[in-house]
Amino acid sequence: MIIAVDAMGGDNAPEVVVHGALQACEEFNCNIILVGDSTAISSCLKGDDCKGLNVHHCTECVGMDESPIKAFKSKKDSSIRVAFDLLKTGKADAVVSAGNSGATMAAGMFSVGKMEGVERPALACILPGEKGDVIIIDAGGNMDCRPVHLYQFGIMAEAYAESCLEMSDPNIGLLNIGEEPGKGNDLVKSAYELFDNSSLNFYGNIEGRDILSGKVRIVVCDGFTGNVVLKFSEGLAESIVARLKKGLGDITNIPETGFFEKFKDSLDYAQYGGAPVLGINGVCIVCHGHSSSKAIKNAIKMACCYVENNTGEKLLKSLRNYTHM
Amino acid sequence: MIIAVDAMGGDNAPEVVVHGALQACEEFNCNIILVGDSTAISSCLKGDDCKGLNVHHCTECVGMDESPIKAFKSKKDSSIRVAFDLLKTGKADAVVSAGNSGATMAAGMFSVGKMEGVERPALACILPGEKGDVIIIDAGGNMDCRPVHLYQFGIMAEAYAESCLEMSDPNIGLLNIGEEPGKGNDLVKSAYELFDNSSLNFYGNIEGRDILSGKVRIVVCDGFTGNVVLKFSEGLAESIVARLKKGLGDITNIPETGFFEKFKDSLDYAQYGGAPVLGINGVCIVCHGHSSSKAIKNAIKMACCYVENNTGEKLLKSLRNYTHM
Repeated sequence: MIIAVDAMGGDNAPEVVVHGALQACEEFNCNIILVGDSTAISSCLKGDDCKGLNVHHCTECVGMDESPIKAFKSKKDSSIRVAFDLLKTGKADAVVSAGNSGATMAAGMFSVGKMEGVERPALACILPGEKGDVIIIDAGGNMDCRPVHLYQFGIMAEAYAESCLEMSDPNIGLLNIGEEPGKGNDLVKSAYELFDNSSLNFYGNIEGRDILSGKVRIVVCDGFTGNVVLKFSEGLAESIVARLKKGLGDITNIPETGFFEKFKDSLDYAQYGGAPVLGINGVCIVCHGHSSSKAIKNAIKMACCYVENNTGEKLLKSLRNYTHM
Repeated sequence: MIIAVDAMGGDNAPEVVVHGALQACEEFNCNIILVGDSTAISSCLKGDDCKGLNVHHCTECVGMDESPIKAFKSKKDSSIRVAFDLLKTGKADAVVSAGNSGATMAAGMFSVGKMEGVERPALACILPGEKGDVIIIDAGGNMDCRPVHLYQFGIMAEAYAESCLEMSDPNIGLLNIGEEPGKGNDLVKSAYELFDNSSLNFYGNIEGRDILSGKVRIVVCDGFTGNVVLKFSEGLAESIVARLKKGLGDITNIPETGFFEKFKDSLDYAQYGGAPVLGINGVCIVCHGHSSSKAIKNAIKMACCYVENNTGEKLLKSLRNYTHM
């Protein structure tokens, strides 16, 4: 198992990425290729070494704000593009990147291409729900969606959840403004019909307040809504913890055990590792830009799991099964 | 000043509504007409009385899950429709309702109609931001929007904020998946151009994490996204406080001062009173279905403020100014 890791991607690259890769290499049975500027990577390694860790030098990297397609076309020696070259040529089994997520998805689409029958690959992000993990799909890959896209997101997320997250027959909720059928915008009204007429384990519509409540394990929405929800959850969690800390300070003394920091982390989906891009011909895990080394390590673990369990094959089988391809 | 209050609207109607109206009547210089079943209302009053409080009997009410348009047409003696009849005939200056918000907006559109030049009336909800109140518009009135709708939401929210919330030249952010121009779905990309070419105090795009951060005072989005965000904030705030309470319980003893309950309330936008429907020919404040009597009281206060400050006139003037009607 060989994982190509984009060493130059993320707010704290390459340090955090290199450290995460090193930990993964020591803990898991995998080989890692760090793709990026070899001098910068070496200086982060500071003599630390791991048998399965290799460096693949390249000269460019894609900034967080660069246009995905332009970056793919103009920067042929960028770390994310070279990582996908390794995947495409069979020199790696998966790609992990904490860089520009749009550029990562675009690189995936252009290099390994979409899976047969998939109209739009999507990002499946894990949120810390009250009764266990909740998948939200699409977490930001596709802005303007059609009903069939949402339907395919649900199918792919179900296969992924069963293959990698030990969920058995997870139920699917369609994110909406009310639970009753017939609610919502044109997109979700039509998507509702597709889900309702399928044999998927479809719960029906769910409201925003039930994203984390555990009513469903998979939340389906367009990438615009999904991205707003994810980023709002970051902002709100930070804001609430800060206010609560301040408010409690007036009442009682909380021992300085790092409780609030740990608690904030437990709400932070970035700690989960990463979000797989579902629907491309290859394995790619996208991490949050401010991922910690632990998150990078967990993303590599997820990539290994995805490959080992033949998750791609399962996605294809599910898509054929539920769309009668 | 006469406020028509839909006594039958809300999860805990008529009790909570009647108590809120009674408090408002005692505290503020206004007259209130409670519209609804007179027997049920009287039993809630239990002999309590206030000089300015009157009851207007009607026989029907609209359920929370009823179809708005159908309910308006079929239930001619429903409390919400009768309240708007009082508004239309000049017997009341404003309507307040915690009932079915879709039905309330529909009743407003059908009875008093849209303001000149307004394509879509919208709900302007107040959220407790880190640096003061933040308005989110549209909070759920319009599912499928066009760019000009978002633009008008921004204009109307600015006029409302200046007139009723003591905000001076509040800046406007367009809810998006990234700050850079050119990001987002087709709707927000086009709306960005309209705002950017106007003389409004336009901040630009904001991400979900900045809805509460204080970067902007007004957040503009379509009603689908706005509704999902609002309800997610309810769910997340409850979930975080529950988890934190549990987690802290293991570390230290928090005195039972009702701190967590108060804190949860401070995060709850329902406590703010209500959301005005901006863009109809009349004053209407929509409250959350689970409003407390305090929230109802505050909604009545907001209705008074809206009327006293001639907010409707200011909206019209702003619309003319920024759209060159």
